[in-house]
Amino acid sequence: MKLNCDMGESFGSWTKGMDADVMPFIDMANIACGFHASDPLTMDQTVRMAIAENVTIGAHPGYPDLLGFGRRDIDLRPDELKAILVYQMAALDGICRTHGTAIQHVKPHGALYNKMAVDHTTLSVVMAAVRDYAPHCPLVVMATPDADDVLDRAREFGIDVWFEAFSDRAYSDEGRLVKRSVPGAVHESTEAIENQVTQIIKDGTVTSISGKRIPIRADTICIHGDSTHAVEAARHMRQVVQAL
Amino acid sequence: MKLNCDMGESFGSWTKGMDADVMPFIDMANIACGFHASDPLTMDQTVRMAIAENVTIGAHPGYPDLLGFGRRDIDLRPDELKAILVYQMAALDGICRTHGTAIQHVKPHGALYNKMAVDHTTLSVVMAAVRDYAPHCPLVVMATPDADDVLDRAREFGIDVWFEAFSDRAYSDEGRLVKRSVPGAVHESTEAIENQVTQIIKDGTVTSISGKRIPIRADTICIHGDSTHAVEAARHMRQVVQAL
Amino acid sequence: MKLNCDMGESFGSWTKGMDADVMPFIDMANIACGFHASDPLTMDQTVRMAIAENVTIGAHPGYPDLLGFGRRDIDLRPDELKAILVYQMAALDGICRTHGTAIQHVKPHGALYNKMAVDHTTLSVVMAAVRDYAPHCPLVVMATPDADDVLDRAREFGIDVWFEAFSDRAYSDEGRLVKRSVPGAVHESTEAIENQVTQIIKDGTVTSISGKRIPIRADTICIHGDSTHAVEAARHMRQVVQAL
Amino acid sequence: MKLNCDMGESFGSWTKGMDADVMPFIDMANIACGFHASDPLTMDQTVRMAIAENVTIGAHPGYPDLLGFGRRDIDLRPDELKAILVYQMAALDGICRTHGTAIQHVKPHGALYNKMAVDHTTLSVVMAAVRDYAPHCPLVVMATPDADDVLDRAREFGIDVWFEAFSDRAYSDEGRLVKRSVPGAVHESTEAIENQVTQIIKDGTVTSISGKRIPIRADTICIHGDSTHAVEAARHMRQVVQAL
Repeated sequence: MKLNCDMGESFGSWTKGMDADVMPFIDMANIACGFHASDPLTMDQTVRMAIAENVTIGAHPGYPDLLGFGRRDIDLRPDELKAILVYQMAALDGICRTHGTAIQHVKPHGALYNKMAVDHTTLSVVMAAVRDYAPHCPLVVMATPDADDVLDRAREFGIDVWFEAFSDRAYSDEGRLVKRSVPGAVHESTEAIENQVTQIIKDGTVTSISGKRIPIRADTICIHGDSTHAVEAARHMRQVVQAL
Repeated sequence: MKLNCDMGESFGSWTKGMDADVMPFIDMANIACGFHASDPLTMDQTVRMAIAENVTIGAHPGYPDLLGFGRRDIDLRPDELKAILVYQMAALDGICRTHGTAIQHVKPHGALYNKMAVDHTTLSVVMAAVRDYAPHCPLVVMATPDADDVLDRAREFGIDVWFEAFSDRAYSDEGRLVKRSVPGAVHESTEAIENQVTQIIKDGTVTSISGKRIPIRADTICIHGDSTHAVEAARHMRQVVQAL
Repeated sequence: MKLNCDMGESFGSWTKGMDADVMPFIDMANIACGFHASDPLTMDQTVRMAIAENVTIGAHPGYPDLLGFGRRDIDLRPDELKAILVYQMAALDGICRTHGTAIQHVKPHGALYNKMAVDHTTLSVVMAAVRDYAPHCPLVVMATPDADDVLDRAREFGIDVWFEAFSDRAYSDEGRLVKRSVPGAVHESTEAIENQVTQIIKDGTVTSISGKRIPIRADTICIHGDSTHAVEAARHMRQVVQAL
Repeated sequence: MKLNCDMGESFGSWTKGMDADVMPFIDMANIACGFHASDPLTMDQTVRMAIAENVTIGAHPGYPDLLGFGRRDIDLRPDELKAILVYQMAALDGICRTHGTAIQHVKPHGALYNKMAVDHTTLSVVMAAVRDYAPHCPLVVMATPDADDVLDRAREFGIDVWFEAFSDRAYSDEGRLVKRSVPGAVHESTEAIENQVTQIIKDGTVTSISGKRIPIRADTICIHGDSTHAVEAARHMRQVVQAL
C-alpha cells in the first residue's frame, strides 16, 4: 500500500504545502505541472526533493486555471483536454529527465480528477493521453464501486490503473466519498484515520458513514501535506503502514 | 542551406501566421511552446502539419509573457530561465512523441533570442538547458561576427549550434542586424531578398548597408509566414535555394 | 432599435475583429475588459475609436479565461463572480473616464451571457454587480420568452434591462435561439437577415425555424464585425434600420 | 506621519500576508490590483477589511507578471504602461465604490516602484496616469535626495506626491536605500527600527550606514505585514508614532 501526496503546488512567490517536511513519509509525489499550480522552477525543485528522498514522481496535471487552483470544472473539448494533459505530463517528465529520472504515474488533479470518476468521456480522454505519452505509467483514479468497469476500460487503452482511497474522508454505503458539506464527512481524530487506513489495508474494506462494512479496492492512499498537523498525520500513517 | 520559420504562434481563439500555407516551403518549423504564444492544442495541430509536410520540428521557447508575445526583455534568474526552457522543450517534445517524432533543434524566441546574442550569461543558461534536455538538438543562434566564440562555448557544453541569417534584413559593416528603425533596415523588394539569399548561400557573404562585402556564417535562413506576401516570398525562396 | 457589436477583442499582438471598419455603423460598442479578451492598451484604443465615431460604450465582461475566450462555462462562486464583474466594469469605465466619457451599458460575454439566460442565480449575481457599480447602465440580456420574469427581477435590483435579438440566428417556436449545430440555425443570405431585422423592428416578431410567427421583445440587435462580409452586413443593417 | 502597508497580495487559493492582523496598526493600505498579485475577490475582501479598520485605501498597481510578483523589470512602452496603470487604479477604485469609498492614494509596486525612482520617463508616465484617472490622489514615491525635482515634476502634472521612508532599511550617505545584498542593509533589531522611525519623524533625518546624519523628507513610512514578527513590529511602530 503506497502513500501518495500532492506536491509542488506553490506558484511563483506564493508557497503552498510543506513539501520538504512530508516528503520523507510518502512513496509517491504527485507534482503539479503549471496549469492549476506550480511553475517550472518549483517543479524542478520539487523533483530534486523527491529524488533526494527516494520518492517516485508522478504527473499531477490539472485544468488550465491558476486562479481557481483547478478546482472548478471547465468544459474542455476532448482534443483540447488531451493536448493539455500530454503537454503537462511531458513538461514534468522532461524536468525529471534532466535529473536522470522519469514520471512513474499520472494522477489528475481537482475538478478533473473528480470529473473523471463520473464522466466516461473524460475518463477515456485521460486514458488516451496516458496511453499516448506515458503508457508505462499507471493512472491513479478514485476508488469507486465501479472499479471493474474502470479496469476494463483501462485494458482497452492498454494502461494500468491504481485505485486511490482516502484516509480522512468518510464513505457512503455505495462506496463513494461523502460530500464535505455533510457532517462527519471528514475524519478529524487520528484514531479514526488510523482505523480507516488499517482496515483498508488489512481487510480491503471501509466502514461507511452509516456503519456498513463495504469493500474497497485501493492501491494507494492519499496523504495531505499542507499543515503541521498534516505532516504529523503523514508521519503517523507511515508508521501504521510499515507496522502492517 | 535550410529554411526555417516560426510556427504555431496562435493562442486559443486568436490566430497568427499562415502556417498551413508556408509549411510546404520550409525545412524546419520552430514551434512556439505556450509561454509567449501557442497552447497545447495549437502545438498538437502544428506538429501534425509539420509531419504531413515532412518538415523537421524544433522548440521555439520564449519568455513567459503572452501579453508581450515574448518580445520584451524580462530579467529572469538563471535557474528560473533554465527551468522555463526545459519545461517548454519537453512539453513540445512530448507532443511530438505522441505522433512518433521528436524535436530536432531549439531556437529561442524574440527578446530571449536577441539577449542570447549579446549576453554571455543568458547564452550559457540556454546552452545548459539544451545540453540537459536535448543534447542531440542544435541550438539556432543569430549569425554574428563572434561565431567562433559561440562555437567554443557550445563545444564546452557539448552541443551544436546552427547560425541563422535573415533574408530581408540589412546587415551593418560589423555583421550585425541593422535596427529596424534605421531606413533601409528591411529589404522590401523581392530582388534584394533573393540577392541576399543567393549571396549568403553561394558566397558566404552579405553586402552591408554601406556596401561592404562581409563574411557571414549561416546554416539556416529565417522565413516569415505571417502574410500572403510572406508566403509568396517563402515559395520563391524555396525555388532559389533549390536552384542553387 | 440600436445596433450593438462586440469590440476590443484583440489581445496583445493578436488581433481579432475589424473594429475600425464596423464602428461607423453601430450605436453601441460592447468592449471586452481583459478577462476573456482585450488588454488595457487595446481597451484604451477601442474607447478612443468609439468616441471618435460617437458610439456609446458598454462593458463586455467575461469569465477569466483567455485561452477559452470566455466561451466555456466556469463554475464560479457568486461572490467571486460578482467581484469579477465589478472589477471589469470599473476597469473599462476608468479608461473611459480618462477620455471624458463613461460606460453606458453592460453586456456579459459568451458562456456567462448564455448562462445568465438559463440560470437564475447567475442572472441575480450579474444584476447585483450592475446595481452596485453601474446602476444607471442597462443590462443587455438575450431576448427570451420569459422577458417579464427578467423585467420583474431587474425591478427588484433597481436596474434596467435591454433585450437583444440576433439578426442572423434562427429562433425556435419557443422564442429561443436554435443551436448552431442544427441545420438552418444561422441565416446565410443577406435577404434572410434583412427580413428578420425588418420584422423585429416593424412587427415585434420573428418567424421561427418551423415557420411560426412569434413575438419577440428587442431593444437592440447584435451585429458582428469579424470579417469583411460582416462589415458589409453591418453597413447594410445600418441602412435598413435608418430607412425604417 | 502615516504608516502604510502593502495588502491584498494573495492570489486565488494562495495566501500571502497577515492582512487582518496588521490592518489595525496602519493608516494606509496599498492594495494590489490583480496584475502582480491579488484577484477581484481578494481585492473586495481587503477593501472591506480596510473600511472596517478605518484605514484609507490606495491602489498598488504593478507590472503584469504574477509569476514574478511584479519584481522583475519589464520593458513596457509608455502608452501600454499608462493604460495598465489606469486599468488597475480604476478596477480597485470601482470595488471601493461598491462599498461607498474610493482610492485615496496610489503607490506603484516592486520593480515599477524602483524604476520610477531612477527613470524619468517611467516617472512621467506614472504621473500622467494618476493625473488622468485620480488627480486627487497623491502618488507615493521613494524618499530620495532629488525630492525637489520630483516635486517640480508633480506640479507640472498637477498632482501631489508623498515621500515614503523605510523603517527597517539602511540608507547610504547619498540618501538612497542600501542594496539588500550589502551587510547591514536591513535593520534586524527592534531598537534600530524604532530609532530610525523616531529620528525620521522628530528630526527629519536618518543616520546612514556609514554613520552620517542625512536629511530625509518623508510623509509616510512603510510597514510589513507578512510574518508574525512583522505584525509585532507594526504594533510597536504604531505606538512609537502615537507617542510622538
